[in-house]
Amino acid sequence: MRKSSIIALSCLLVMPVNMLAAQELMSDAQDLFEPIPAEPPALEGNALTPEKVELGKMLYFEPRLSESHTISCNTCHQIGMGGVDMLETSRGHRWQAGGRNAPTVLNSVFNTAQFWDGRAADLAEQAGGPMVNPVEMASTTTHVVEQLKGIPGYDAYFKSAFPDDPDPINLPNAEKAIAVFETTLITPNAPFDKFLKGDETALTDMQKEGLQAFMDNGCATCHNGVNVGGNMYQPFGVVENPGAEFLPPDDKGRFQVTASVDDEYVFKVPTLRNIALTPPYFHTGKSWDLHQAVAVMGSSQLGITLSDDEVAKITAFLDSLTGDQPQIVYPTLPPSVATTPRPMP
Amino acid sequence: MRKSSIIALSCLLVMPVNMLAAQELMSDAQDLFEPIPAEPPALEGNALTPEKVELGKMLYFEPRLSESHTISCNTCHQIGMGGVDMLETSRGHRWQAGGRNAPTVLNSVFNTAQFWDGRAADLAEQAGGPMVNPVEMASTTTHVVEQLKGIPGYDAYFKSAFPDDPDPINLPNAEKAIAVFETTLITPNAPFDKFLKGDETALTDMQKEGLQAFMDNGCATCHNGVNVGGNMYQPFGVVENPGAEFLPPDDKGRFQVTASVDDEYVFKVPTLRNIALTPPYFHTGKSWDLHQAVAVMGSSQLGITLSDDEVAKITAFLDSLTGDQPQIVYPTLPPSVATTPRPMP
Repeated sequence: MRKSSIIALSCLLVMPVNMLAAQELMSDAQDLFEPIPAEPPALEGNALTPEKVELGKMLYFEPRLSESHTISCNTCHQIGMGGVDMLETSRGHRWQAGGRNAPTVLNSVFNTAQFWDGRAADLAEQAGGPMVNPVEMASTTTHVVEQLKGIPGYDAYFKSAFPDDPDPINLPNAEKAIAVFETTLITPNAPFDKFLKGDETALTDMQKEGLQAFMDNGCATCHNGVNVGGNMYQPFGVVENPGAEFLPPDDKGRFQVTASVDDEYVFKVPTLRNIALTPPYFHTGKSWDLHQAVAVMGSSQLGITLSDDEVAKITAFLDSLTGDQPQIVYPTLPPSVATTPRPMP
Repeated sequence: MRKSSIIALSCLLVMPVNMLAAQELMSDAQDLFEPIPAEPPALEGNALTPEKVELGKMLYFEPRLSESHTISCNTCHQIGMGGVDMLETSRGHRWQAGGRNAPTVLNSVFNTAQFWDGRAADLAEQAGGPMVNPVEMASTTTHVVEQLKGIPGYDAYFKSAFPDDPDPINLPNAEKAIAVFETTLITPNAPFDKFLKGDETALTDMQKEGLQAFMDNGCATCHNGVNVGGNMYQPFGVVENPGAEFLPPDDKGRFQVTASVDDEYVFKVPTLRNIALTPPYFHTGKSWDLHQAVAVMGSSQLGITLSDDEVAKITAFLDSLTGDQPQIVYPTLPPSVATTPRPMP
C-alpha cells in the first residue's frame, strides 16, 4: 500500500471516533448546561415593558441615587466591562473600598439569588442594597425617593412605566424598573451556546478538551446550568484552604446571612459566563489571572493539582463563555432644577 | 360696530406687526448666532473615520486611563447628563474635589479653546489634561501608554484607527481619537436652531421675548456664535464683583495661563447650549438656579438689575437651546489580562 493511501485510511478510521467523541461531549454538556436564551426571561409580578426598561436604564445610570451624586449602578457594574469594574473591590462613598469583588450584572437574572452571600432573593431586592449601603452609594431609602421626586423629569417616566400606580415614584418601583432593565443584560451566542445548540465547530479542539476536563475533574459539579454557576452555595475551600490572600478569615460569607455554622466561608458559586471579561477573580478579587484562578479552584475545591496543560485547556474553554455583549444606548437623564436635593460631600 | 368685529379687526391690525417683529427678531438673531450643524465638524489634521470614532468612544469610557481605574472622561462629562456631572466641582482621584465646575463636552468642538481658562488649544490637547492631573485621573503620560499597551484588545483598535502608524498606541493618537469622538457629541435641532433656520413657530412667545431681551440687554455681546458663547474671554465681574461665593479671590482664571494682569479673573465665556441640562452654573458651580445665574450675569457683567419678568423670559429662551442629545451605544472595552498594569489605590 502506498504511503498516501495509508494516511487516507487512517483518517477514515480516526475521524469517526473523533466525531463520535465530539457528539458524546456535546451530549454530556447538554445534560449539564443550558444556552443563554435570546430574549430576556420574565420576572414574576414584574412584566417587561419598553417603558419600564427605559426607566430602569435611566436609574441604572443615575448617579444622583447616591448621596454624593457620583456613583450609579453602572459605576461598579459597567455595561461595557463585562458588567463589573475590574477592581479587586469597588470604590464607594468617599473612596471607601467595598467588602467584596463586584459580581457581574450580566446574566445575573439567571442566578438563584444575588450578592456573593445570596442575601437578596432577586434582582429587585438587590437593586436597593447598594443605594443605602454606607460604603457604596450611602443614601437612605427616604432620600432616594426625595431625590427622584425632586427631579421633575422623572415624573413622566415613572407614570409611563407604572401606569396603574397613582403615586409611582417610590423605591419598590425604582427597584422593579432596574430589575427589568437588568433582565435585558444577557449575553447569548457565546461559542459554548452554539456548541450546546448543536454546532460542533463552535468550539476549538482545545476548548473541547477543556470542556471535557472541566466535566471530568468535577468543576461542573458546581458550575453548571444556564449560568455555568450561580445556582448553589459552596464553601470556599471544600478540600483545602486556599490561603488567607484568597479567603481572608474575617469574611465568613453566607454565615453573615444565616448565622449557621454550616455556612461559614460559604459563598454563592459565581457564574463563569463572560469570565474572561471580568477579572479580577474570587470574592476578594485577589486573583488577576484566570489560569491561576482555575488552578486554585482545582486545589481548594477539588483537591487536585491540575497540570499546566489542563489549566490552559480549561481556561480556553472558559473563553468560549463570552457571549454577545449588551448594546445599550446611554440614556439621557432629566436635569436637576433649583429645588432638586443637592449632592452631599 | 359689534364687539366681535372690533376684536377681529384688531387682530388683523396686530398680527402683521407681530409677524413683522418676529421676522426682525429672526433676522437680528441670524446676524449673531448660527445653528448647530447636523454633522460633526472636521478637525484639521485629524480626519474623522468610523474606526477612530469607535476607538475614541472606548477611550472616553475607559476608567483604566486613571491611576485608580475608576475615573474616565465620562465620569465628569457624562453623555447622558448634558455632558457634565451636575456637581459643583467633580470628584477626582481619592475623592479630591476639582478646582472648577466641569464644562460640558457637548458641542465643545465649537469652542475657540478648551477649559475655563482656555489653556488647551483644542479637544486633543484637552483630552490628555485630566489623565495626568493629580486631582483628576492622576496618571502619568508614560503610564497611560503602558496601560493601553497592557490591554491586548486595544492593539487592533489602534491599528484600525491609525493604519499608517507602525506603532499606533501612543498618547497623541489616544488624544486624537478622543477628540474625533467628541466632535460627534453635538446637539443639533434645538428649538432655537429651528428658529434660526426660519421656523418662526419653533420658539414660544415667551422665548421670543426672552431672545429679544437677551440681545437688547447685551447678553449676546459675549454669548453669540454657534455655541452662544465659547468664543472669547471676559472678566467675571465686568461691572460689578459677583461676590466671593461665585468668584473666590484665589482663582484668578486665565491669569494662571498668561500671567498677564489683564487676565486676572478672566474666564472663557461658556457656551449656553443645553444650559438647562447642565446645572450648577459658573466656574465655581455655586449657582444651582438658572434664574439666579441669569440675574447675577445681569448685575456683574452688564451692570443692570434684570426684573423677575425679564429673568423668566431670558431663562425661557435659554431652554430653547436644548438640542437633540447624543445617542451613544456604550462601548465594549477589552478586558484586562494577567499582565495588565493594575489599579493603584
